[in-house]
Amino acid sequence: MKLAERLLQGDKRAVARLISMAENHDPEAVEILRKLYNKTGNAHVIGITGPPGAGKSTLTDKLAKAIRREGKTVGIIAVDPTSPFTGGSILGDRVRMNDLSMDPGVFIRSMGTRGHLGGLSKATQAAVKILDIYGVDYIFIETVGVGQSEVDIAKNADTTLMVTVPGLGDDIQTIKAGIMEIGDVFAVNKADRDGAKRTATEIEMMLDFHHSDWRPPVQMVIAVENKGVDELLDHLKNHRKYLEETGKLQEKRIQNSKLEIIDLVQEKLMGMILDKSHKEEMVHRLAADVAARKIDPYSASEAILKEI
Amino acid sequence: MKLAERLLQGDKRAVARLISMAENHDPEAVEILRKLYNKTGNAHVIGITGPPGAGKSTLTDKLAKAIRREGKTVGIIAVDPTSPFTGGSILGDRVRMNDLSMDPGVFIRSMGTRGHLGGLSKATQAAVKILDIYGVDYIFIETVGVGQSEVDIAKNADTTLMVTVPGLGDDIQTIKAGIMEIGDVFAVNKADRDGAKRTATEIEMMLDFHHSDWRPPVQMVIAVENKGVDELLDHLKNHRKYLEETGKLQEKRIQNSKLEIIDLVQEKLMGMILDKSHKEEMVHRLAADVAARKIDPYSASEAILKEI
Repeated sequence: MKLAERLLQGDKRAVARLISMAENHDPEAVEILRKLYNKTGNAHVIGITGPPGAGKSTLTDKLAKAIRREGKTVGIIAVDPTSPFTGGSILGDRVRMNDLSMDPGVFIRSMGTRGHLGGLSKATQAAVKILDIYGVDYIFIETVGVGQSEVDIAKNADTTLMVTVPGLGDDIQTIKAGIMEIGDVFAVNKADRDGAKRTATEIEMMLDFHHSDWRPPVQMVIAVENKGVDELLDHLKNHRKYLEETGKLQEKRIQNSKLEIIDLVQEKLMGMILDKSHKEEMVHRLAADVAARKIDPYSASEAILKEI
Repeated sequence: MKLAERLLQGDKRAVARLISMAENHDPEAVEILRKLYNKTGNAHVIGITGPPGAGKSTLTDKLAKAIRREGKTVGIIAVDPTSPFTGGSILGDRVRMNDLSMDPGVFIRSMGTRGHLGGLSKATQAAVKILDIYGVDYIFIETVGVGQSEVDIAKNADTTLMVTVPGLGDDIQTIKAGIMEIGDVFAVNKADRDGAKRTATEIEMMLDFHHSDWRPPVQMVIAVENKGVDELLDHLKNHRKYLEETGKLQEKRIQNSKLEIIDLVQEKLMGMILDKSHKEEMVHRLAADVAARKIDPYSASEAILKEI
């Protein structure tokens, strides 16, 4: 049977296969996504981000279980921009999720950069589409870190959950300044630790400056004890409901589509430039001249544009 | 006096002014950088990265002081991809550096995204060039987080220093997998804490799999007590020496120039596309169709390419 049909019929291995193909820039994957694109847009896509050590994996695990208790299905994409690995089991940090991955209603996938810097956000986008077509109700995109890539990934999500913990030191200040921008729901994990309440209060104070119809809720959780998880899931659902009712979901998706189209145009244009081998040679020669300070990069880029 | 001349004559305010102009995409800044590009390439550019809470700011501070004791000058660019702020003093996390910023041999600048997602790495590149022309001996690019943006920024540096601390929990595993790729020198900060030795050993074990002429050293430091800082500075200098002696510095700079030229070409091409207002309208219309699942993003991007 064809891969596209297997995907539509809920074959879990077809999902894994297609995601690998997308990671490897296999044109067949693009063709399948093109054909089945109209089957996307149903899942609630939730980005989960926050600093290392915040317990994001455990929390994602518990949220997935809560969703399963409601009889719904879930896909988990664990994105690690710092890892050269991809495919899932190598790092072993997903071992504890084994009980989840045996569940036919759960699909788990780890994605690393695999040497393709910059390609990760594209591969993640593809994986979201594939899971959406496959038909899961929820898609979690879990990312490590608090950098630009996480912001990029958050742009693909309907809802962004920002997970933090007490006691991260001074840097929490800078994180807080940033999360205001992208967090729709906040979780203070390890809420039994000293300072948890202060962390929550500090986030609330930052949010006071944040003017929007949607006031991001701040939920205390203890993921390992499954405390606060159901409440957190309710907040996530409420955010999606809010987006739908205000028309913001549609707005957000138009904005995301715009960025995706522009990315694709850019990618294709660059492909055209670099495919012609003499142009690639030209780029290399100019780069050597720039490195030797014989020419500046601005003039070099103009020389290439003139060639086109 | 003209800004370019003031920069060459070591006017600190000209540096600050030019960086702001570059952040605001002022064409005059590009013109000045174009003209003075041949004055760049002398500073030792060091990227400092690592997870939040690792004490990067304090360590950067101490390294800068060690450099000043040797009579050399230093520029510090603190990049925070999660912060919407820029310009330095707003967050106040640089307050303790005041004694440094009074020193005429030190230039400090904080940079946030200021709403320009994706523009940060370009603004950082410009700031590095400006400081290089200004004539500092060392340029530190300090970043928050461990995501893609940090990897991008590391690409601009000659040497990447990865700072970590004991006790970050499970996520350290994934960080370690990633840092192998980009760390040239490692610092285990807060080395008086429990588990510091184990953290160092774990990094060494990861590095055993890393085959290269350069074996990244792992230095234990206690930044707040200024312990291990001079040794760390020596490792950084050795790495630069290694790059110079093996010809790898030149190789690296050609590679960086290539990426910069391609970025500039891409930026200009996109500018051409979106400048024509009817194209922008077309992109918006197509994005709405994609969001409504009337058309897939691949076909939409092809429609735009056909228009060009």
